[in-house]
Parts: sequence; structure tokens; C-alpha cells
Amino acid sequence: MPKNRQIVLDSRPQGEASAANFKLLTTDTPALADGQVLVRHHYLSLDPYMRGRMNEGKSYAQPQPLGQVMIGGTVGEVAESRNPKYAAGDKVVGMGGWQEYSVVDGNQPGALRKVSTSQVPLSHYLGAVGMPGVTAWYGLVKIIEPKAGQTVVVSAASGAVGSAVGVLAKKRGARAVGVAGGAEKCRYVTEELGFDACIDYKQHKDAQSLSQALKEACPGGVDGYFENVGGIVLDAVLLRANSFARIAMCGMISGYDGKPIPMQYPQLILTNRMRIEGFIVSEHMEVWPEALAELGQLVGSGELKPRESVAQGLESAPEAFMGLLRGRNFGKQLVKLV
Amino acid sequence: MPKNRQIVLDSRPQGEASAANFKLLTTDTPALADGQVLVRHHYLSLDPYMRGRMNEGKSYAQPQPLGQVMIGGTVGEVAESRNPKYAAGDKVVGMGGWQEYSVVDGNQPGALRKVSTSQVPLSHYLGAVGMPGVTAWYGLVKIIEPKAGQTVVVSAASGAVGSAVGVLAKKRGARAVGVAGGAEKCRYVTEELGFDACIDYKQHKDAQSLSQALKEACPGGVDGYFENVGGIVLDAVLLRANSFARIAMCGMISGYDGKPIPMQYPQLILTNRMRIEGFIVSEHMEVWPEALAELGQLVGSGELKPRESVAQGLESAPEAFMGLLRGRNFGKQLVKLV
Repeated sequence: MPKNRQIVLDSRPQGEASAANFKLLTTDTPALADGQVLVRHHYLSLDPYMRGRMNEGKSYAQPQPLGQVMIGGTVGEVAESRNPKYAAGDKVVGMGGWQEYSVVDGNQPGALRKVSTSQVPLSHYLGAVGMPGVTAWYGLVKIIEPKAGQTVVVSAASGAVGSAVGVLAKKRGARAVGVAGGAEKCRYVTEELGFDACIDYKQHKDAQSLSQALKEACPGGVDGYFENVGGIVLDAVLLRANSFARIAMCGMISGYDGKPIPMQYPQLILTNRMRIEGFIVSEHMEVWPEALAELGQLVGSGELKPRESVAQGLESAPEAFMGLLRGRNFGKQLVKLV
Repeated sequence: MPKNRQIVLDSRPQGEASAANFKLLTTDTPALADGQVLVRHHYLSLDPYMRGRMNEGKSYAQPQPLGQVMIGGTVGEVAESRNPKYAAGDKVVGMGGWQEYSVVDGNQPGALRKVSTSQVPLSHYLGAVGMPGVTAWYGLVKIIEPKAGQTVVVSAASGAVGSAVGVLAKKRGARAVGVAGGAEKCRYVTEELGFDACIDYKQHKDAQSLSQALKEACPGGVDGYFENVGGIVLDAVLLRANSFARIAMCGMISGYDGKPIPMQYPQLILTNRMRIEGFIVSEHMEVWPEALAELGQLVGSGELKPRESVAQGLESAPEAFMGLLRGRNFGKQLVKLV
């Protein structure tokens, strides 16, 4: 059996997370038992939710246990199978974690999903046609519920989730406005993804300034906001929200390290009769088939052109994850393992 | 025709509102035109929403125009009628404003509603069996949607809205926990209204301390919160919220004067997958008949025993309103005009 390199959580962050919180180990892959499958991972997905798992405190999920392989989505190929449902060479999506190989019980429902790479490249099953895409779909379709002509704003607009939010909103006849960090990301958002406008938050030092930019980008106000970042972007959007605006709370990456960032104007929820709803997509498995079908079609047709930042080799995962938390990635952050 | 005393908004508050923002005038009541009704007001309702109308800024309603009679709910008796639908002596609820008489177009839908005082005293049509009661009903039944065994917290629990929230929650098998100011109000909330517990917020100087008290009063956490006040009570409840908790945002009286009060932990909306919804009851007229029927029954049977603070004479309205904003009232604040 091949050697397996793994990254485990070695310590919990005190304030800011760092690459030193992780440790690289080399182990043997165990011999397969009946029903098991050995998967060789081609790509590991890095996602903001992982930052929450590094903490001990109360969150929606159990904390990542110290000394165990970090949780994470993976795509790869079956290397060896003792399960009749899987054959060597099958392409599969799973939650293999931060390691090069995983041993999976092929009979556990949902543990592995076979995918086809004829229309969609394998890596996109970790992005636009995977968990981030379905996250975008759920928040937009089930919480924001945009009507044609309404305006939807999304933060981290060039990211795996944000890019899909905008394209899905445009398909529904809404105006899509992104918020992203830097001119290059904004150019991708408007020119390649087809958003109507994109605001570079790095040009704005506070919520008032950002709110003024939103006023120009959203002449009819904001009807829906897909929240990936929190902090001053949330405050700025609240200042531009229309009556009955909806906010889908998906991530608040700006507050993941250290102190929580207050919401400055909660009274606007009342005066605008807004609805704010937090969600995690793994609690809404019922929408996955419908969402994946639409997302696969959008990627296949080229209407949604996902960007990827690809780090090379398992050992690069901790630094690539730090980059993701600080917005240094451009599009979906992956680690290539083969 | 009788003389009419009226209170108009004379100036807008700079920071805290004061009685000096109002002015008392005496005018003549005009002769009635065909279709009109002259109503002599018995009670004027004072409600927190009026504070919002005193400002010029964006809110859910138009600001109260300067120099015009302050908006307000009234109950009274038809003094004279030139409309076949109304006869002198009819008891009616309307939006007569801060004055002793009003002239109403009896043909305008919803302008006046005839009520019976055989089961429910006239004044309660401004409270438990009126707008505040329906406000409680909508937020509890349509937003919080409590299930039997869940815990519902309500702030300003001894007030016209809060008292009804708790009694309606108990009827649905939920645990009802109030937050109110002072031992006397808390005693009323638990002993006369039948809440399971009531926390005196005056015993707590910050959200952490209040949150500890909530932990004791809500051993199973908080599933629903009916928000009447904002500020540290909102923060304290968020710290105790269960997964999928719902917050009905009805009022944020603590921030009505001067600076808005931030929400300290908005990330809890995400980690707890909460839903927060602001509403105003006048936008949900479809629920009024069902809500009023249940509330009338609860008051008639004595299960809901509304408290009232009654100020005497129109001239006392400004000071009574200041008292309401500062929590000096006990139950529904009224002004008796006859």
C-alpha cells in the first residue's frame, strides 16, 4: 500500500490562525477491509468554514479534534476497491480531508459520489458544481428569492460562492452587484461573470464610504444581500437596503480571527422590515440535486466560468489556507495533490 | 360645535425627545359634511412607534409633519353623524390623533371600526385587543412560530405587546420568559400573566450578566425572542439562542433617542442558523380578524389581564409619552380624555 501524507490540527489559534497550527505527518495506508475503497485525492478543497472548526467554542459544528486529519472536501480517483459499487479509475467526490489518500466505507450513504468529467472538469466538483455552488444556490433561491428587476449584492463576489450567486441572480433577471478586493477581481466579476457592477472594497476605509459606492452601483437600492464576509460590508449594505430586503448569512470571514465585529445599525432590520437568515448548506441536502443540475448546466454552457487558485502539493495547504482567510486567493482555492 | 384641543408636533428632537417638542392648541371642530362623523375621543393611545415619527430620517413611515396633530390611535363615541352607517353613541376605534375630537370620513374603509364593550372594556381596544395585541400575535404566531416545549423570551414583558406575547406563547405550550424593569413589573408578569419566569433587567449592567440570568431562566436555551427594546437585551438573548432560533423584531426603543446601539455578535445569526425578521403590523391586515378573535377571547376569559397606565387629560400626553419612552409606564399607556 502507498504511503499517505496527512495534515492534522496540531494546536488551536489564539486570535489569528497561522500555518503553525497544523502539522504534516506520513503514515501507511491501511489494508482494505470488505466494502472499503481506497481513494487517491487529486484535489483538496480549502473553504472558510474550516476556520470555525479550528476553534474550541460553540459553533454549528463540532470542533476539529486536535491530532486528527483536518476535515475537507476532496475529489479523486478510486485506486483500489473492495466494494462492487466502485471500480479502480472511478472519479469520486468525498470528504477525504487534508491528506493524499483516504479509505472510505463505500456502503455509507453519501460518503462518496461518482461524477463524470465529460462536461465539467474534476476540480469544479469542489467549487461551482459542488458545496460552494449549492451554498450559493440555496442562499439565493431559498432565502433571497430575487424577483426580476430586483438588485442582489454579494460579497466575496469573485470567490467560489459569490461568483455563482451573481450568475444565478442574473439568470433570474435580477441586477447583480459584487463586492470584491482589488481591480483584477472586480474586472473578472463584471467582464467574465457578467455582473452589472463590482465595488472594490479596498478603495473604501469605512461603511459610509462603501455605502456611497453602493448607492451608485444600486440606484434602486438593495433587495437581497448574500453575506460572505461581515464587518463594514454588512453595515454598508444595511444602509442601502430596501423595504423587505433579505439577507442570506453564509459566512462572516472578517470576524473569524479574534474579536467579533458588531453590526452597527440593527434597527434598520426593523425599519426596513428585513429578513436575515443564517444557514449551512449541509442541512439542506434536499436541494442538492436541483441545484447541482442547474450549476452543472451553467458551467457546461460557459455561462459560469469559475476561477481557481491552485496550490501545489499537500504541504502547501496551510499557507494556502491562510491566504484564503486573508483574501489572497482568486476564485476557488484548491490544493493539487497529484 | 364643541371646541377641540389638539397637540401638534412643534419641533423635531435633537437627540432625546422632550415634552417641549409638542404644543397644545385649541381650535373649533368644523361643521360636518355629508358622510362625515364627529368622534369624541375617550382614550388616546401612546405607543413607542410615535418616537420614530418625530424624526425626519428614513423610517418605515413618513415623518410626522410639523404643526399637524400627532398621529395616534383613539377609542371614543360618535358624537354626531352625517353617515347612515354610524349613529350617535356608537363606540368606535380609529386613528384620531392627539386631540379630543376628530372628524372622520365614515365611508373610508378601515377609518373607523365599531366595537362592543359588553365583554371588553373600551380602553382595551387600544391595547390587548387592538394594535399592540395584534402586533404580539403576528410576531409570535407568524415569525417565532413556537412549538410546544420551546422557550420564548420577550422584552418589555409587562407592556401592552409583551404581556400578550407571553400569554399567547403559554397557550401554545411554550415556556414564556419575560424581561422587564423592576420587581413590581416582574411580579405582575409571573403572577398575573402566568409567565414561567421574568428577569429584572435593572439588576444587570451588561449583556454578559443578563445572559447569565437568561441561562438560569431558560435551561433549554432560547428558541424564540420577541424584540421590543434592542440594546443589551438583544445581545444577551443572542448569546443564549438555540440553533434555528427566530427573532421577531418589533421595536428597539432603547435606541430611539440618539445613537443607534450596535448588535455585538451578528456572527451568532450564522452559527445558530437563526432567522431575524422585522415587521410592522399595519402591513399584515389579513391577520387582524383571527388575531383579534383570539385576543378578545383571552381578555374576556381573564387569561390575559392587561395593565394600564392612564394619564388624565390631553395636556398630560407629552409627559406621559416621555414616561413611556423611559419605561416609567406599567402596561399600556393611555391618556383619558373625558
